[in-house]
Amino acid sequence: MRVYTFGEGAAEGTADMVEVLGGKGAGLMAMSLLGIPVPPGFTLPASVCRAYFADPALPETVWAEVERGLSHVEALRGRRFGDPARPLLVSVRSGAAVSMPGMMDTVLNVGLNDETVRGLADMGSGRRFAFDSYRRFVEMYAEIVLELDPSALAGVRDEVLAMTGARNVAGLELPLLEGLVMAYQRRVEQAAGRPIPQDPREQLREAVAAVFRSWNARRAVRFRREHGIPDGLGTAVTVQSMVFGNLGPDSSTGVAFTRCPNTGEPRLFGEYLPVAQGEEVVRGIATPLPLSRADADGGLVALEDAAPAVYADLATIGRRLEAHFGDVQDLEFTIEAGQVWMLQTRTARRSARAEVRVAVDMVGEALIDRDEALLRVHPAKLQRLIHPSVDAEARRRVIGRGLPASPGAVSGRAVFDPDEAVRRAHAGERVILVRTETSPEDMAAIQAVAGVLTARGGMTSHAALVARGLGRCCVTGCSDIFVDERAGRFTVRGQSLVVEAGTLLTIDGTSGDVLLGEVATTPAEPPPAYHVLMGWADERRRLRVLGNADHADDVRTALAQGAEGVGLCRTEHMFLDPDRVHAVRELVYAADEHARRDALDRMLPLQRADYTEMFEAAAGRTVAIRLLDLPLKDMVTSDPAELGAVARALSTPVDVLLHRTKQIQATNSLLGHRGCRLGLTFPEVYEVQVRAMLEALLDTGTRVNLQIIVPMVTAVEEMVRLRRRISHMAERVCRQRDAEPCHVDIGAMIEVPRACLLAGRLAPVCDFFLFGTNDLTITSFGVNRDDAGRFLPFYLENEVLPADPFVHLDEEGVGGLIRLAVERGRAVRPDLVCGLTGAQVCDPPTIEFSCATGLDFISAPPHTVPVARLAAARAEIARARAAKETSA
Amino acid sequence: MRVYTFGEGAAEGTADMVEVLGGKGAGLMAMSLLGIPVPPGFTLPASVCRAYFADPALPETVWAEVERGLSHVEALRGRRFGDPARPLLVSVRSGAAVSMPGMMDTVLNVGLNDETVRGLADMGSGRRFAFDSYRRFVEMYAEIVLELDPSALAGVRDEVLAMTGARNVAGLELPLLEGLVMAYQRRVEQAAGRPIPQDPREQLREAVAAVFRSWNARRAVRFRREHGIPDGLGTAVTVQSMVFGNLGPDSSTGVAFTRCPNTGEPRLFGEYLPVAQGEEVVRGIATPLPLSRADADGGLVALEDAAPAVYADLATIGRRLEAHFGDVQDLEFTIEAGQVWMLQTRTARRSARAEVRVAVDMVGEALIDRDEALLRVHPAKLQRLIHPSVDAEARRRVIGRGLPASPGAVSGRAVFDPDEAVRRAHAGERVILVRTETSPEDMAAIQAVAGVLTARGGMTSHAALVARGLGRCCVTGCSDIFVDERAGRFTVRGQSLVVEAGTLLTIDGTSGDVLLGEVATTPAEPPPAYHVLMGWADERRRLRVLGNADHADDVRTALAQGAEGVGLCRTEHMFLDPDRVHAVRELVYAADEHARRDALDRMLPLQRADYTEMFEAAAGRTVAIRLLDLPLKDMVTSDPAELGAVARALSTPVDVLLHRTKQIQATNSLLGHRGCRLGLTFPEVYEVQVRAMLEALLDTGTRVNLQIIVPMVTAVEEMVRLRRRISHMAERVCRQRDAEPCHVDIGAMIEVPRACLLAGRLAPVCDFFLFGTNDLTITSFGVNRDDAGRFLPFYLENEVLPADPFVHLDEEGVGGLIRLAVERGRAVRPDLVCGLTGAQVCDPPTIEFSCATGLDFISAPPHTVPVARLAAARAEIARARAAKETSA
Repeated sequence: MRVYTFGEGAAEGTADMVEVLGGKGAGLMAMSLLGIPVPPGFTLPASVCRAYFADPALPETVWAEVERGLSHVEALRGRRFGDPARPLLVSVRSGAAVSMPGMMDTVLNVGLNDETVRGLADMGSGRRFAFDSYRRFVEMYAEIVLELDPSALAGVRDEVLAMTGARNVAGLELPLLEGLVMAYQRRVEQAAGRPIPQDPREQLREAVAAVFRSWNARRAVRFRREHGIPDGLGTAVTVQSMVFGNLGPDSSTGVAFTRCPNTGEPRLFGEYLPVAQGEEVVRGIATPLPLSRADADGGLVALEDAAPAVYADLATIGRRLEAHFGDVQDLEFTIEAGQVWMLQTRTARRSARAEVRVAVDMVGEALIDRDEALLRVHPAKLQRLIHPSVDAEARRRVIGRGLPASPGAVSGRAVFDPDEAVRRAHAGERVILVRTETSPEDMAAIQAVAGVLTARGGMTSHAALVARGLGRCCVTGCSDIFVDERAGRFTVRGQSLVVEAGTLLTIDGTSGDVLLGEVATTPAEPPPAYHVLMGWADERRRLRVLGNADHADDVRTALAQGAEGVGLCRTEHMFLDPDRVHAVRELVYAADEHARRDALDRMLPLQRADYTEMFEAAAGRTVAIRLLDLPLKDMVTSDPAELGAVARALSTPVDVLLHRTKQIQATNSLLGHRGCRLGLTFPEVYEVQVRAMLEALLDTGTRVNLQIIVPMVTAVEEMVRLRRRISHMAERVCRQRDAEPCHVDIGAMIEVPRACLLAGRLAPVCDFFLFGTNDLTITSFGVNRDDAGRFLPFYLENEVLPADPFVHLDEEGVGGLIRLAVERGRAVRPDLVCGLTGAQVCDPPTIEFSCATGLDFISAPPHTVPVARLAAARAEIARARAAKETSA
Repeated sequence: MRVYTFGEGAAEGTADMVEVLGGKGAGLMAMSLLGIPVPPGFTLPASVCRAYFADPALPETVWAEVERGLSHVEALRGRRFGDPARPLLVSVRSGAAVSMPGMMDTVLNVGLNDETVRGLADMGSGRRFAFDSYRRFVEMYAEIVLELDPSALAGVRDEVLAMTGARNVAGLELPLLEGLVMAYQRRVEQAAGRPIPQDPREQLREAVAAVFRSWNARRAVRFRREHGIPDGLGTAVTVQSMVFGNLGPDSSTGVAFTRCPNTGEPRLFGEYLPVAQGEEVVRGIATPLPLSRADADGGLVALEDAAPAVYADLATIGRRLEAHFGDVQDLEFTIEAGQVWMLQTRTARRSARAEVRVAVDMVGEALIDRDEALLRVHPAKLQRLIHPSVDAEARRRVIGRGLPASPGAVSGRAVFDPDEAVRRAHAGERVILVRTETSPEDMAAIQAVAGVLTARGGMTSHAALVARGLGRCCVTGCSDIFVDERAGRFTVRGQSLVVEAGTLLTIDGTSGDVLLGEVATTPAEPPPAYHVLMGWADERRRLRVLGNADHADDVRTALAQGAEGVGLCRTEHMFLDPDRVHAVRELVYAADEHARRDALDRMLPLQRADYTEMFEAAAGRTVAIRLLDLPLKDMVTSDPAELGAVARALSTPVDVLLHRTKQIQATNSLLGHRGCRLGLTFPEVYEVQVRAMLEALLDTGTRVNLQIIVPMVTAVEEMVRLRRRISHMAERVCRQRDAEPCHVDIGAMIEVPRACLLAGRLAPVCDFFLFGTNDLTITSFGVNRDDAGRFLPFYLENEVLPADPFVHLDEEGVGGLIRLAVERGRAVRPDLVCGLTGAQVCDPPTIEFSCATGLDFISAPPHTVPVARLAAARAEIARARAAKETSA
């Protein structure tokens, strides 16, 4: 076991030894090697920490190495540790390989005792400084090393202050300050049963051990659990010469970002606290001052004005570090008598806005290339740029928190009844639909309202999926509220609050917050850099990104978000909308061909209008429409009033219809009579669909590239028959309109495992495959989405499954089937176009999978299109890099 | 186009030209080549028939060939066609490549006219014979060639008979017979608008064409449709010298089997009719006489006694033909004045019993080898030997017909209520459970009763699956009955019949018949040859055949049927039996560990007793037990009385339990919380199971080879955890009993596609894979068995799917997944044991698939074990033959 020294342009370690030396240690090595002023010191690697946990009696070889390190520091600083005349003081700092900000401990001013404090005073900074440092040391040592409750010393201090009438320690006369330190020491000895050691080496050993132990402090353990960091790593410890931010008026301590972490603006951003030490600046004990003039308001003087030379030094150091690390740095520094000393550098966390701007700016500054810029921006962060958010400055009353199911923020009036929601929304009101959970019958309402709030359901519940697909803001699973739909109100857990229908609410689908009243929201306004970056992403990616769009509005949104066309238009709503559902029911209940024709004739113009509007919005791009995939079960009703209307229309007794309803509802819709199974057994349904879309195509000048998707294909013969029927229908429409025959691609939605196995025989009768990962997950796992709730939480908590397969694509099982299908399909038809859609498409690894599997396109909900565009580019870059590494 | 002549030891065709010459033609060629006496003749191939349908004006080349054939016959018979002095008469017979018995037409005595009839008379057989032959010719020609209604001539005949007072034609004076023929001819000319041609060649042409046309007779078309024979084949036509079974007292015509088609006994079996012609013997016009003395009763004289030399000739011919064809032959012959002439030979249809005996006997006679014997017996036929059947001789009143869901025949009293069924069955009554359809709650009743009858459901409905598994006789989908369970009766469609509870019924699960009253049944008594054959099958097969057995009774049955052990013991009944279900419910509803333990403690001894009894019955063989695979849904109840009892036991309000019931029932059981998902989240359930089976194992001296099957495995980690837990549990039980640790194999039931994809990672933690084709079919197709009823009939009728995948294994999809899993599993663990079970295992192609895929075993319901044993041997033979052909 050895230590790694650093200081004055040299270092025994390097910047890439993060695993060994921790982030802080590695950063100090890097800065020292760059010639940036760092207080000299040395780092004990994390392996020593692990050894300490194995046996707290560390071998003497460790302390021999520590002595070597001390000698190194003594030589560079010209002081000696424990020397009563010119004492060297050191800080003992934690620093793990993974950033755990503020979770572990630091001990400053180690080396002070009743003798060296006088030596320190004599070295020119005076007694007040020396005893103030001693006071801080005793406070820290007591709390961190001896693990005393801070209130013990706070009590002593308060007594002394009360006795003297001083407002704070700085206000104490010097003798009283010295007295305070002595009173502290007596109190410590009383409480701990032993005094603070006077031997500096004993102090050092104990401080190092205490910092090791802080790895296992409760808050650190909790933090690791939350962030999935293994407990066994341990922390490195850096022992470093003290520099004093509390030495005098031209001393201070502070933190700095090399660029603004909120906006990405390229200038120093940060704060400093004059005459202060350690982490006081981040502890919020006193009001810190801004570094840059641009951030100075309220009469505060920025460092840029107070000490222009120091500011310039800091800026220069920042630029050198950015050039070295190629990224924005988050710095800790101390200014000792006008001299800048760097204590830490690390990659800065930043807002989505800053992330995008910095990435683009740095390409301009030739610090990184475009690929690197694309890798710098996490796709999920884009969500924050393209959706409105609750104004961070606004007054807010949060009444509950659910799951951030679909991003954005909206205010509107709570409505509990779906029909009322539609009515009020159509009347121009902004409405938030509040339900215990939603069902397919709520489609029209979800589409009409501004936002959806449910008390139950997860990130992939019906409400969440539909809302994401529509780009509606949505919060699901808000278990804080109890919804009483009949009474039209909800109550809030633990609060005597009843929210009646019509109450103004705000929901934040990015955070999951539910707020009372109308709260100001900030509109989405992606910065200019966003558009630059997305342009680069589009150039780089090969995967085509299309949008899911069920309405003309969706088409416009998807295209505005950069979709290359519509990859999946679901047509279920065209049958379930309140103004259509009656005709649909007549169709289903009709006993004869004539009554069915009648119902279809009424549907045709409505559907044609839907398609026409969509085709116009698509303006010449691809529009892929999926034929109806609605379980028969969802097309019937047992509502007496509705059944009565159907009965009158069909001149059939209600009893007969009710019997049929029960018959149909008796069986399971998911694995039942749906998709093309319904299309084959009720041929009129697909007939009216194909006719409506072909007529719309001709009406709009056949400019879009129409594709027809056959859902739920299980057998080759299904595809053969429907393909033939669709083609005939298309030809007939063209002939009737006296138009040229129009070309329509016809493909299969691959959503059951059998279709994957049969891909080799399906490919010749399909122009494309569209993999539907929702149903493919259900059938591959034999797990229904709704049922999953009964055991999936247990599975995830206990790591029986690594992730929820309805959110993150199961690459091994479901992905394995997709790979198999692509291979088999392309083996017989090398140019077979393959695409993917489903809830998992919003998850960047799904995009990576799609690229790796050689898919041609994915289709995503309109608002996640940018995420997919960026993720696709990143996947391409990652693949290129991996290939380069393999070949190298 | 040519004809193929035969006769007197020579032939232009051969026995293998069935496709060209039809079965009859090819048989005649074969017999002629063997030197067996056949009336000389020639065959027009089926291609001429097809040409005739393309253009009825056949080219003259055809008739030139017919002339060549006639010359050949004339030369051999020393008579000339149309010669007034020594006329040759011919028969014109149909004969297609596929046997269509009695479906097409034959014209005899072609060549007779007003002149040749006198020549025939002068040749020595007399005028009566000649005119009787002429009469027959006119009758046939009128009906078959001129297509007159037979009633027209029957009217003439009845007039003449009435006029003379004769009882039948044989009783007419000769002049009156001559007059009848003339009257016939006048009537034909009137009715047809033209006379029967006097020109023999014109007769022949017209007769050939008429026989061609009979290929398209309505009954022939229907027969082909029912038997899946293509319409385009057409029939060959054989023109053959007449021989006369009506020539005198030592003439006759008959049919013979070379062995008894009912028992397989090796002696001539058949009938003959003296002084008769053509098919009179099979038409049942007169009472035929037996061929063999053994079949003579009621004072009938057998041919064996009446004409021993002729009988000996026939027997010799039969043996020669058996030796030639290597199989039992079905013969048609005519004896003309003591001379045997063979008219047809073909492979004989036979009963299951005969099939088995003949196959075994022929090996003894060195006619075929053992492999061939095994290939001769169709596995499905074994069912008839091992199940009782309704006595064919018994008086029967069939009131409905359903699907033959589980073979056998039983009588018992109709009971509609499952609980009552259990009670009455336990009281010793024979009961037939009658339900609209069954559900899992009826398990106990199905197990208790003698038979099950349902009005709805297919071959794979719940009732069918459970009954087959238990070996209970079952008829499902009997749509002729309407069951009113509440009233406790059913009505029969179209009959004013109400069957009340307690009425005696008989159901035949082999035919699907439902009969009123107690009908005598014949017990299953497989003949000795059966055991010989099954012994050969066991020697030949490599696939191990195990039995499904849920109870000790099943174990005994399975072993008696030749199972090598128990491949699948389902344990659901141990939880659903009425005496257990209460404890199970307490377990499910219990809120705390303590209450759960309490419930489990009560279950343990009952389950241990179940296992003990099974292990004793298994007598040292393998017993593979599947841990509980019951959806949580099926373990709860909403019955107020039952809930009340649980509520009292748990001291919990009924409301709370009802809420929980609703919660659980709200979701879908099939794709939900079941199998090992339940075992992981409710660990106590598997714990009690493993403990009970291990204790039973130790109690019975650890003689059986215990295997534990984990159901519904989807993730590797499920198997890892459960394997660990099961092993720990087993160790603990052994330790507690102070016994040696016992070895238990632990394997996975592979029933969802994901498990197949993950086989490579599952194999290291599984001692075996057991593929469950029921659930694998559901998940691969995305089709629920119950829902399938909504569209599967349409799919099968329209050939969208070739077969019901719940009955016949879908080798492409489901089979593809199984192949993939076996490959991946064995790639990492070459000795991985793989087996298969499911409803499809009763279907021989599934056994062939299992052999081809290299599976080690299958597990079948007890009563289908013999079918599987034989099918496995046959699959092995077929593979060996195919391999030989490939290498040759």
